[in-house]
Amino acid sequence: MGEQGLAAKVAPRSVRLDPHDNLAVAVDAIERGVAVHGVAAVERIPRGHKMALAPIDAGAPVIKIGQVIGFALSAVSPGEWLHEHNIGLKDFERDYRFAEDAGRLPSLRAEAPATFEGFRRADGRVGTRNYVGILSSVNCSATAARFMAEEIMRSGVLADFPNIDGVVPLVHGTGCAIDTEGEGFEVLKRTQWGYATNPNMAAVIMVGLGCEAFQIDRWKQAYGIAESERFRSLTIQQTGGTRRTVEAGVAAIRNMLPFANEARRETVPASELVLALQCGGSDGYSGITANPALGAAADLLVAHGGTAILSETPEIYGAEHLLTRRAASRAVGERLVELIHWWEDYAARNRGVMNNNPSPGNKAGGLTTILEKSLGAAAKGGFSALAEVYRYAEPVRAKGLVFMDTPGFDPVAATGQIAGGANVLAFTTGRGSAFGSKPTPTIKLATNTPMYERMVEDMDINCGDILDGVPIEDKGRQIFEHILDVASGRRTKSEQLGYGDHEFVPWQIGATM
Amino acid sequence: MGEQGLAAKVAPRSVRLDPHDNLAVAVDAIERGVAVHGVAAVERIPRGHKMALAPIDAGAPVIKIGQVIGFALSAVSPGEWLHEHNIGLKDFERDYRFAEDAGRLPSLRAEAPATFEGFRRADGRVGTRNYVGILSSVNCSATAARFMAEEIMRSGVLADFPNIDGVVPLVHGTGCAIDTEGEGFEVLKRTQWGYATNPNMAAVIMVGLGCEAFQIDRWKQAYGIAESERFRSLTIQQTGGTRRTVEAGVAAIRNMLPFANEARRETVPASELVLALQCGGSDGYSGITANPALGAAADLLVAHGGTAILSETPEIYGAEHLLTRRAASRAVGERLVELIHWWEDYAARNRGVMNNNPSPGNKAGGLTTILEKSLGAAAKGGFSALAEVYRYAEPVRAKGLVFMDTPGFDPVAATGQIAGGANVLAFTTGRGSAFGSKPTPTIKLATNTPMYERMVEDMDINCGDILDGVPIEDKGRQIFEHILDVASGRRTKSEQLGYGDHEFVPWQIGATM
Ligand SMILES: [Ca+2]
Ligand SMILES: [Ca+2]
Ligand SMILES: [Ca+2]
Ligand SMILES: [Ca+2]
Ligand SMILES: [Ca+2]
Repeated sequence: MGEQGLAAKVAPRSVRLDPHDNLAVAVDAIERGVAVHGVAAVERIPRGHKMALAPIDAGAPVIKIGQVIGFALSAVSPGEWLHEHNIGLKDFERDYRFAEDAGRLPSLRAEAPATFEGFRRADGRVGTRNYVGILSSVNCSATAARFMAEEIMRSGVLADFPNIDGVVPLVHGTGCAIDTEGEGFEVLKRTQWGYATNPNMAAVIMVGLGCEAFQIDRWKQAYGIAESERFRSLTIQQTGGTRRTVEAGVAAIRNMLPFANEARRETVPASELVLALQCGGSDGYSGITANPALGAAADLLVAHGGTAILSETPEIYGAEHLLTRRAASRAVGERLVELIHWWEDYAARNRGVMNNNPSPGNKAGGLTTILEKSLGAAAKGGFSALAEVYRYAEPVRAKGLVFMDTPGFDPVAATGQIAGGANVLAFTTGRGSAFGSKPTPTIKLATNTPMYERMVEDMDINCGDILDGVPIEDKGRQIFEHILDVASGRRTKSEQLGYGDHEFVPWQIGATM
Repeated sequence: MGEQGLAAKVAPRSVRLDPHDNLAVAVDAIERGVAVHGVAAVERIPRGHKMALAPIDAGAPVIKIGQVIGFALSAVSPGEWLHEHNIGLKDFERDYRFAEDAGRLPSLRAEAPATFEGFRRADGRVGTRNYVGILSSVNCSATAARFMAEEIMRSGVLADFPNIDGVVPLVHGTGCAIDTEGEGFEVLKRTQWGYATNPNMAAVIMVGLGCEAFQIDRWKQAYGIAESERFRSLTIQQTGGTRRTVEAGVAAIRNMLPFANEARRETVPASELVLALQCGGSDGYSGITANPALGAAADLLVAHGGTAILSETPEIYGAEHLLTRRAASRAVGERLVELIHWWEDYAARNRGVMNNNPSPGNKAGGLTTILEKSLGAAAKGGFSALAEVYRYAEPVRAKGLVFMDTPGFDPVAATGQIAGGANVLAFTTGRGSAFGSKPTPTIKLATNTPMYERMVEDMDINCGDILDGVPIEDKGRQIFEHILDVASGRRTKSEQLGYGDHEFVPWQIGATM
């Protein structure tokens, strides 16, 4: 018996991602005549490609994950293969339709308000972790910052302060020889401030060299930061060298520990969660399993009054219409379009071009239009209205779904979101990213079962079972419950492994001089 | 008795930096009528400023550290203050005079050939240290790389291999979401290759995630790198997650240790030294103490057949004539000018401008022209002919004084030089930088005695005593001997402190997408 014969005996898997969809995605190839979702294929549907489930009139929208991904170029019958030959974009791509579509939210059906156990801070915000941070103003003080953390760990003193999750050094490769009037410098200042004030930080020390462009005193002044039991700073040059600085820093941290240890978890509403949404190492399943499942979880969070941060501007580039239509107001939509123009200029200045169109490989894999490709990335934000748009590392204070401008590169994107105040992070991955962050815990969602099984020590949740029939709504609820657990203290896989000390990567914009 | 009265009783210090100089620099203010170097001041010379020691005709060159820093605007008498009112640049700044001036070298006076104890490698080059390196292709594998190093340290296994200096993780914040056709990607590839092959490395392992833009296999192919007892690579995705990857990496490193431990120091000529020249945290003394003293040491090294790498293009910008005149050939000089043009474009693309002119503060401190300012930075290269010009992280194979294009930012500049093959690094500092590097040891030279004393645990050599009368030639010889000692295994201050695990910072050029 040949492979063909064997395959014919096993029903091909396929997914219909949303009740509004007029198509199904073939997880396995669907042979002609084989029926899925009650519709028989009238031609062979390749693996990863789309089959119409309903008649679609010429010019009518093709709907995937409840969103328009294109329009039928001619009338399409149920069972037909949907791809470039019969889907086009018309003028959709030039029409932002600011704020025309209401966001769609799951009804909570008299559900009990969701809660978690968090650390309420003096400013009213809530942490999910209780870290002491060691920031460095410049690479020149990175080693001193690391030495402080190592000495605190080596000393065993943290055993006396069980409510502290750890001491985390957050060092980087810049901080000097950059234009102090440029946007790169502003980004660094915001990022440092955002980490210093992230609600997952109980207290922070910042160590500098002394002569660097990033002057700690000027930065403190700019943000109104005063020395206190939750913030201390020092420089190597003023303290008289490395050894004395490490000694003084360790002493300062030891003095912070009793205060930091006073924090206690209490029951707080889920509305206090600020969830960063990330994907990295995407694959052909990202857009149909983990991303929409995370989107369902994000919608639940928003329905409960919380905040979800969608980011990675290059991955929605060219399909920003997906979001402008859901913008809470024209002004919010226009801010998103401004970001898009900033990126075009940024790429041009760096001798590149923005291009998020499906590649030949994407198309072979079944992605037809830029809307469909970007929808896969944006799906992790769910269907809520877009409440606000932020620049990189700006403080996120709005409730609901918001967008923060970041690159797609995972550590840089996550650094911006955590600086913005994210207190929990969910990260979808197909190829198997091993990312983890501090002070904000990262939950990793596998898009497919084989990778989940191969990297089970790094993956928190398998979304690959969506391909086997688990409804996205159920998976979304599982993720939401897991987020609440992690927010309450359950340790993620990356926390168990010890990730987070090397993933602080502020976005570098501009020349290193 | 007032301060003035007290000061008058103490002879003001001043330095004449080279026998060819027609001026002295006032270390302390010189009051009218007070004589230094046998010449009485005819007016008050402020601290840090210049006084003529000989008559200078109108239009004749003003010479400092043996170099032209400008031309007399009118006839100048001995004892006169030299500054903007009587020094100008004429058309000097537009005249490269390629290769017109022979480099000037100290005569070695039948001196015995200098040697050091180094590790001769299979390719003929010589190491001054014997490290095992752990490179990462992308930030996504940084934590795995660190964990491997930590596990090797924790295990105590290195005690059985006394000829190995250590295992050094070299991680960074990029490697993905960058233009793989752009120059930033080329720079990263060269940098990684340069570290993998630096003669201070006995063996190297490289760890990746798997799906990153920096594909280890393609990089190996590009440089003809094969897996061997001195090079191993692996990825997290292929190995099945973080824990297994760390385990596999540690096993691979353990297998490398016996080979790495076979290296033995042997007596080799000083011509095998490739000395990286750096300054950071400069002050008003850099250009008259530590930099010319290091220049004297560099000249000695070149006279012995070795190599010295001058860098930090922004700090010689606008005064590249200092070097084009000393170029070994017109072609070498033209390559330097090409770099200058590249930087003008780089700055413009990043919305900045190149400007190395003396600032108002520089001028108040006594620096008159851009030539004088840049001369202070370039002085650490001495007076040798310029043998070759390299791009960032290119392999340095020429003997003599060479120039490598780098930013001024210390960790980025040093990373390029070490990637280029530098096996020892000398770093002058006035404010007190705490820099240290691996696998190449950094020797730190203080420009002034108060900083040296305040940061003596970080500083290797005090050049501040030049202000008290120690001749630059003597200080240069002291530095040269110290370099030979360090090359032979003597540990620098930054090595004693443990620096070098956080200062690998490849130059990021281009957009992070
Ligand atoms: Ca992505
Ligand atoms: Ca990403
Ligand atoms: Ca410099
Ligand atoms: Ca400098
Ligand atoms: Ca420098």
